[in-house]
Amino acid sequence: MTADLASLEARIGHRFGQRELLEQALTHRSYAARNNERLEFLGDSVLNCVVGLMLYRRFQQLQEGQLSRLRANLVNQQSLCEVARRIGLGAYLKLGEGELRSGGADRPSILADALESLFGAAFLDAGFPAAEGVIERLMGPAVVAIDPHTQGKDAKTLLQEWLQARRKGLPDYQLVAVTGQAHAQVFTVECRIEALGLRCQGTGNSRKAAEQAAAGAAYAQLAGH
Amino acid sequence: MTADLASLEARIGHRFGQRELLEQALTHRSYAARNNERLEFLGDSVLNCVVGLMLYRRFQQLQEGQLSRLRANLVNQQSLCEVARRIGLGAYLKLGEGELRSGGADRPSILADALESLFGAAFLDAGFPAAEGVIERLMGPAVVAIDPHTQGKDAKTLLQEWLQARRKGLPDYQLVAVTGQAHAQVFTVECRIEALGLRCQGTGNSRKAAEQAAAGAAYAQLAGH
Repeated sequence: MTADLASLEARIGHRFGQRELLEQALTHRSYAARNNERLEFLGDSVLNCVVGLMLYRRFQQLQEGQLSRLRANLVNQQSLCEVARRIGLGAYLKLGEGELRSGGADRPSILADALESLFGAAFLDAGFPAAEGVIERLMGPAVVAIDPHTQGKDAKTLLQEWLQARRKGLPDYQLVAVTGQAHAQVFTVECRIEALGLRCQGTGNSRKAAEQAAAGAAYAQLAGH
Repeated sequence: MTADLASLEARIGHRFGQRELLEQALTHRSYAARNNERLEFLGDSVLNCVVGLMLYRRFQQLQEGQLSRLRANLVNQQSLCEVARRIGLGAYLKLGEGELRSGGADRPSILADALESLFGAAFLDAGFPAAEGVIERLMGPAVVAIDPHTQGKDAKTLLQEWLQARRKGLPDYQLVAVTGQAHAQVFTVECRIEALGLRCQGTGNSRKAAEQAAAGAAYAQLAGH
């Protein structure tokens, strides 16, 4: 059972003239031979084109390489998956039984691919302006929120730059705990900034990820993000 | 001195409302700070989108991966450079003196980038349909000519598949000559297909390249390409 398609059309802001395109975009390859893989190919390219245009217009001073980096940060599995979850896309997907049972309707790769397929379907259904409208509606908030000064830099780099600009010395990272079983360990790292008397912890499924999380927590406190 | 822009507009099939966009698309970074690099970013994405749509429509049976491979064969520096040369784009470019003197107006990377910039300029000037029109006009012949059965496969693979389908045994490759000086050697390889009594030679600047050339000659004879 999939949810009512009209409600999805309302969420993405496009009513399909060719409903079969919408249905195809929601069909995973595990469900039928006529699935969304070809539409995903098309959707990926129209998505990159529309987001490229949005960034080109918004950031008049940025060079080509910076625009490419911003786009890569906006158009990736994680960001697409977030958008897909926001519109509840998983409930509309047609998946094979195996995928359905193993949680495919909430799997990031399946959600991201289906969202791209939706963009491709709108493009085929009513041309570039239709795809542009859907993409601007769904991806627009992320484009507006993007900060070209911090994008592409990880938390440790941001924190280090913030501290160096204020001559506060480098932070120190200490592994303080490793918990969980061998195949699912959780690392806890503490980021210490002696000059400011600040200590922040972060966790992750690798030491590196935990360091980034700890640095992010420290940076958020210091830079007020 | 650059050539008359109206003649270029006629060749690409788009008359610019905003002539400054056309001028910017033809300006290399060696000439001015206001150059074509940002337009190239935009042009690359609209080019991939339009060629993606052309391939999607033309090859209804191909899967996503095959469509991507075909597009990569159509959209690359070499193919873009060929199109740029066909429309005489080099004569319209604005290059810094150094680039001009060192033959920049015929350099593949500069020509390919400028062509992408032109696509981006048409996109900004009059929207997606304008860019689509220019791209279809200039890239259309290559899309029509493309053969999905041979794209992405090298000559040795094609020949082997052709022979296996007919149970004719594998070809044998023999190095028959190496000529030229150490830094410019020319290899000659003979491709022998005993079952058919066929022998074809090929040359190249490596043994591998000569084998491919020989296989290509044999395949051309057998498959009639």
